[in-house]
Amino acid sequence: MLVALLTDFGLTDTYVGVMQAIIADLAPGVALVNLTHAVPPQDVAAGAWHLAVAAPYLPAEAVVLAVVDPGVGTARRPIAVQLGARRFVAPDNGLLTRVLAQAPALAAVVLDNPAWWLQGPQTSATFHGRDIFAPVAGRLARGQPLAEAGSALAPADLVRLALPEPTWEGDILVAQVIHSDHFGNLITDIGPDLAPRLFAAPAVTAQIGQHVVRERAATFGAGPTDAPFWYLDSSGHAAIAWRDGSAARHLGVAVGAQVRVRW
Amino acid sequence: MLVALLTDFGLTDTYVGVMQAIIADLAPGVALVNLTHAVPPQDVAAGAWHLAVAAPYLPAEAVVLAVVDPGVGTARRPIAVQLGARRFVAPDNGLLTRVLAQAPALAAVVLDNPAWWLQGPQTSATFHGRDIFAPVAGRLARGQPLAEAGSALAPADLVRLALPEPTWEGDILVAQVIHSDHFGNLITDIGPDLAPRLFAAPAVTAQIGQHVVRERAATFGAGPTDAPFWYLDSSGHAAIAWRDGSAARHLGVAVGAQVRVRW
Amino acid sequence: MLVALLTDFGLTDTYVGVMQAIIADLAPGVALVNLTHAVPPQDVAAGAWHLAVAAPYLPAEAVVLAVVDPGVGTARRPIAVQLGARRFVAPDNGLLTRVLAQAPALAAVVLDNPAWWLQGPQTSATFHGRDIFAPVAGRLARGQPLAEAGSALAPADLVRLALPEPTWEGDILVAQVIHSDHFGNLITDIGPDLAPRLFAAPAVTAQIGQHVVRERAATFGAGPTDAPFWYLDSSGHAAIAWRDGSAARHLGVAVGAQVRVRW
Repeated sequence: MLVALLTDFGLTDTYVGVMQAIIADLAPGVALVNLTHAVPPQDVAAGAWHLAVAAPYLPAEAVVLAVVDPGVGTARRPIAVQLGARRFVAPDNGLLTRVLAQAPALAAVVLDNPAWWLQGPQTSATFHGRDIFAPVAGRLARGQPLAEAGSALAPADLVRLALPEPTWEGDILVAQVIHSDHFGNLITDIGPDLAPRLFAAPAVTAQIGQHVVRERAATFGAGPTDAPFWYLDSSGHAAIAWRDGSAARHLGVAVGAQVRVRW
Repeated sequence: MLVALLTDFGLTDTYVGVMQAIIADLAPGVALVNLTHAVPPQDVAAGAWHLAVAAPYLPAEAVVLAVVDPGVGTARRPIAVQLGARRFVAPDNGLLTRVLAQAPALAAVVLDNPAWWLQGPQTSATFHGRDIFAPVAGRLARGQPLAEAGSALAPADLVRLALPEPTWEGDILVAQVIHSDHFGNLITDIGPDLAPRLFAAPAVTAQIGQHVVRERAATFGAGPTDAPFWYLDSSGHAAIAWRDGSAARHLGVAVGAQVRVRW
Repeated sequence: MLVALLTDFGLTDTYVGVMQAIIADLAPGVALVNLTHAVPPQDVAAGAWHLAVAAPYLPAEAVVLAVVDPGVGTARRPIAVQLGARRFVAPDNGLLTRVLAQAPALAAVVLDNPAWWLQGPQTSATFHGRDIFAPVAGRLARGQPLAEAGSALAPADLVRLALPEPTWEGDILVAQVIHSDHFGNLITDIGPDLAPRLFAAPAVTAQIGQHVVRERAATFGAGPTDAPFWYLDSSGHAAIAWRDGSAARHLGVAVGAQVRVRW
């Protein structure tokens, strides 16, 4: 059994390690995998992106613990959701929006059964990752049934974010950068539906910041050495790279930047 | 069995990974959990804080490997200490000060049995984490008895740091910031003894840097949007936050900053 | 069984976590250890250094997954190499240069057997870590034989980098800084062959940047408090430190800096 963790907690505190220790104690022998803990603080949309990129590659029965939770302790609900055989434990604030678009939710519960929470010290109002989400993930990982974690919830009622999607202005596709990765690759919201057309078109002209991107390459090594170029990111999205460098830095743009594409 | 690691080694070198590989080789099946490796270099007091925040949430029989060790290779002693069923492996430089205040030490040894050290290459003078502490943690994790790791030591003789504690100047409580976390929350040395009084008082006025903190909130989401506020941190300490932002950055203060509180 | 991972992927994306999940799914019960993922982007030589420092301390039968791969998707070959009982999975771009100098390669294969790759979605051109290297590492970790991963390759034909080595100009040893670690220690290419002579000589004078380094110390704690000093790094290389501080910052130098040594 594998538990994958994703948060905006960073790695400078012991927050993530404590959650892992609680899970390992409840589910001995579990494999603990960090997806990332560098989601920008409180950026639910960025967390939703990272979850969706990783989820298809997780074991079919994995438990995913995802916490980007500016509303911790308020009325937002802590939830667990089953998608296929995978279980996601998270706040109900839209963090699951993109994974909910990948597969239908088979079941969902509000985590309102205190017997599943951390036993011992009082539940804090500010660290549900430790006091609620990690213990629930640990119990699911050791085989306790989702239905016992709390009250049933209609999957249709889960909070969903409005996601950025490219729009057409005449023959111009107005897209945006939705992620800038560790290498400075700029991943756009031109997804698996439209990206193949961008790469199949005879020619492409894209405006981003003060720059024009015309080149396309199948690999980083095949890209031009002095210009930005399009490539098909491993997420299935069209993305802009700069060979042996950072497109984000060369082009001076960040997440949210508009890309106007004509092909 | 779980081994939790805490160091100031960072994650840019292979230092932590090598320690984990040594432990995993000695204790197959062990769960390895990183508490944090971002303790500021050589900051023993910061390491002591992180250890104490995490320790109560570790499995009852965990082994904790803690290395913040500016005196590596000098006369400072490498030690292992048993607190309850948990074993801590560390340099004897005060790093265990706060966990020693949480529970009485049942036994302590100096790690002077070379048969427990890394076998093979010569023991280095500068990386006892690899050559002494990790092998000892691995042997404890696989069940070898603490008493065989070296010569017995009186727990009362372990090095302890003088810890910051708030003091009263008339009716003003003079406290200080002892940790600034990943979110910029400012955690003070107003601990479980005094913090409840701060939150129960009819009104609070606190001076920190050029700012006054009067508001109190039970959760981040309930805090004011344009002012700093007090909340009860999950460590049991009174702390200052800025909603959807970093109190450290908004207030322009860091660890060590004085907080003058009146209630 | 242990799989150790080293990449330039960073920890801000889910790239490393996805690779770990794929390995854990193929080889249940495997121990996953991160050596480092902070190799500077595309810096194959830096990755080679880190691998060589860590490799001698890994379990005899470990699998090592190493990806620093600017040529991903181009003609550079994905390979697996057996050194002793250890197996290294990597691109054939010189990343294994230093470990190949530590032990003779017993076998090598090109990873051209698609049955060993990630099954399901199409293999991407830009993330072989996920689509080829991780599945191969997982299969090796669960005991599938190296020879079935692809076509045999003569170890002598593996790509090797030209490594920096100190040279003599008369009685001056011209060395260079090959790594600046998390603490700002400056590790030079004066390795196990020459380093003992530097420490045994009656006196040493070294020029680095605008500074002269004369002192030598057995431990950090024995070094001078207001000057840089030589110490024998745990990698067996001569290195320059600044007590309770960063030599890199104090001396204002970085990787590649020349060090002119006379003894």
